[in-house]
Amino acid sequence: MGFEHLKGFRDIFPEDAQIRTDLFRKIEDIAVSFGFSPIEYPSLEPLELFRIKSGDELVKQTFSFKDKGDREVTMIPEATPSTVRLLTSRKDMPKPVRWYSIPRLWRYEEPQSGRLREHVQFNADIFGAESSYADAEIIGLAARILDNLSLNGEYEIRVNDRNLMNHVLRGLGVADRTGTLSVIDHFGKVDNDTLSSELRDIGNDENQIYTIMKLIEKTVKPSALMDLLSSQVFLDDETIEDVNKLEATCSILTRYTRSDVVVNLATVRGLGYYTGIVFEGFDKNGGLRSIFGGGRYDSLAQLVSSQNISAVGFGMGDAVLEILLRRTGKWILDRKLNKYAVCSPSRKLYDQCLEFALKLRNLGIPAITDLNGRSLSAQLKNASANDCDYAIIVGENDLKSGNVTLRELKGGEQKQTSFEDILKDLVKHKGVP
Amino acid sequence: MGFEHLKGFRDIFPEDAQIRTDLFRKIEDIAVSFGFSPIEYPSLEPLELFRIKSGDELVKQTFSFKDKGDREVTMIPEATPSTVRLLTSRKDMPKPVRWYSIPRLWRYEEPQSGRLREHVQFNADIFGAESSYADAEIIGLAARILDNLSLNGEYEIRVNDRNLMNHVLRGLGVADRTGTLSVIDHFGKVDNDTLSSELRDIGNDENQIYTIMKLIEKTVKPSALMDLLSSQVFLDDETIEDVNKLEATCSILTRYTRSDVVVNLATVRGLGYYTGIVFEGFDKNGGLRSIFGGGRYDSLAQLVSSQNISAVGFGMGDAVLEILLRRTGKWILDRKLNKYAVCSPSRKLYDQCLEFALKLRNLGIPAITDLNGRSLSAQLKNASANDCDYAIIVGENDLKSGNVTLRELKGGEQKQTSFEDILKDLVKHKGVP
Repeated sequence: MGFEHLKGFRDIFPEDAQIRTDLFRKIEDIAVSFGFSPIEYPSLEPLELFRIKSGDELVKQTFSFKDKGDREVTMIPEATPSTVRLLTSRKDMPKPVRWYSIPRLWRYEEPQSGRLREHVQFNADIFGAESSYADAEIIGLAARILDNLSLNGEYEIRVNDRNLMNHVLRGLGVADRTGTLSVIDHFGKVDNDTLSSELRDIGNDENQIYTIMKLIEKTVKPSALMDLLSSQVFLDDETIEDVNKLEATCSILTRYTRSDVVVNLATVRGLGYYTGIVFEGFDKNGGLRSIFGGGRYDSLAQLVSSQNISAVGFGMGDAVLEILLRRTGKWILDRKLNKYAVCSPSRKLYDQCLEFALKLRNLGIPAITDLNGRSLSAQLKNASANDCDYAIIVGENDLKSGNVTLRELKGGEQKQTSFEDILKDLVKHKGVP
Repeated sequence: MGFEHLKGFRDIFPEDAQIRTDLFRKIEDIAVSFGFSPIEYPSLEPLELFRIKSGDELVKQTFSFKDKGDREVTMIPEATPSTVRLLTSRKDMPKPVRWYSIPRLWRYEEPQSGRLREHVQFNADIFGAESSYADAEIIGLAARILDNLSLNGEYEIRVNDRNLMNHVLRGLGVADRTGTLSVIDHFGKVDNDTLSSELRDIGNDENQIYTIMKLIEKTVKPSALMDLLSSQVFLDDETIEDVNKLEATCSILTRYTRSDVVVNLATVRGLGYYTGIVFEGFDKNGGLRSIFGGGRYDSLAQLVSSQNISAVGFGMGDAVLEILLRRTGKWILDRKLNKYAVCSPSRKLYDQCLEFALKLRNLGIPAITDLNGRSLSAQLKNASANDCDYAIIVGENDLKSGNVTLRELKGGEQKQTSFEDILKDLVKHKGVP
């Protein structure tokens, strides 16, 4: 007998949950330093809100159902529609609006590495700013988060622009540009022959296919983009403008991070609603899904509530991030406070132990006392098992002379001192005696 | 056109979400200081996990459905079953185990003040300790959280003991003790005549009803409990032991908080699985639902996985807590860092502005730059609208002499200073220049 969690869901125990708590606090603090403010929205929304944006394809992969009031509802599969819903419901917000949120998201699909049925995602968006500075700021935020998690050098940023791609495909005379972008999105997931025949199937001729393959299989520095393109297609003014904007964005981005920024014309991101820059963060060793991804989506507010509000944002999921942090040895708690067990051989002194523990807790220092009436040696053993660093042993005779014993639990070293001196030291050294 | 959130759900905008972020961090920090560690569990669980504990009554009020794999699943309506599931799946945990979690919970019921279809709840449990010290510690944690939120004096703690109640009812010769406890749970929600007839309906005689009413309508100090009981019923040894344990717990509890602790024999808490102490926190002005509630439930681990593990815990929901904090003027952000806008009249200096902003952000200081190519006066206006406290104005001539202008946005006072001096001041005063 016994219950287990559902497939694709996670039980997270303290050894990991503590790291996650710290991780999300760090991410939030960075977002706040960029001037972003938090929002929250329901975990359950009308299914219709997601249909307008992503169509029935996404809906198939949702945990959606009819609630007891016969409404079609869904556990939210992504953050953007709700975020835009909140934005358009508050017309008083001075633009640009910088918002972040850290929702749980749910998708009904086959679980695999870095892809779960439930995950937590950090989301950030800037509304009401269309400049390269806005594009660079949102990507820069993603980069600064990773850099602050000591992942600098471990990832590269791939950028592209959906406008640019549309203009390039138009220059090539491609008729079904949306379909072609969808096929390009498969690059790297299917082999090149399959990709070519998919491109053929939607009406592209051999010249077009040849050129598209030439363009998307290369990854170039932003400064080399113009050359890459002009070697394959005629660049009209609009296309040149797109290239210049993308280059400008990448140039501003170098102020935020030293990570490699490359242009990869295969990076188009599947979702149909991107209207400008698109970007993804990838680990340099490969093999993982994207660490973060996002782009500009200037027409979604129109769909949600007939308002014209430009938008650029990204999401960063916890699953791939955890894999990367583990792989690079960074999945560790780096702000751990020392933890104390206040022990006594005498049950008469339990109130005294509690008094001391409460004083430590008032300073924010983790402190526990015995709850089971155990012997002193059992208390000390339990303190170690419970991850304590120090024991404060309160003995009857010591206490009369105003002293306690401070014992380092790993090494076993101990000294007599007064509790007041322990407190003073803790205040001075912020938890590390 | 436009979408709205579902009934009983909430959109939370920055002005409140910022307060909530701080609030939950504070609560977590206090839990950690008590030696509690975080856990996380899925938002969706097999419906069966909740049926074993709470029966079909609760199930009717869940957001439950069949998933695409035809499994009966539910969005979790409470934290305890999942917490116990995690505990029993990890037999290596040294007892006592102190865990906390902050899940979203969902109940399909008519929304009303302090009762929503989705809410966030802080949960804490101690497993593997049965003493009064354990009982006092869990209630003490709830009290310290409220006290730290400056709510001391605003609430009282009502305690009772399910064992004690069972023994008292046995002493009164009550046949249907579970049924009688369920009726007692209605005290205060229905009038006394209705309550009496409910007690009569399940087989209690007039003497029993009279005595039960006498007992449950009083609220007494823990030290007066023995007198209250002995005035109405004969106390056998077991009952006396229950009273003594409850008194001992209340006495230890006074070490944690100065809040009033009272015994209220009507406090039995509906859920059938409590086996010892039960407790609730109530605002002193009345009118609100309980701020927190919990108790001892030593037999749940047995139901979940045939293990005997004692347990005591509580939940504290965000909805009532917010109402109480608002009512007492404590729904305010008390750790707000000053926010800066780095502005310039010259677009040529935007990179310089960004450089300054990034340096502020590195210190964790919120800083924004213009993203819209606005005039300086529009930038300053936008900075105020975006809740900035200071503007750092970067002018071409000033910069040549190594200076910027630091302007206080509310008062309008400004001075010439070097950016380095601003940084130095910020480091010294942690965000307040």
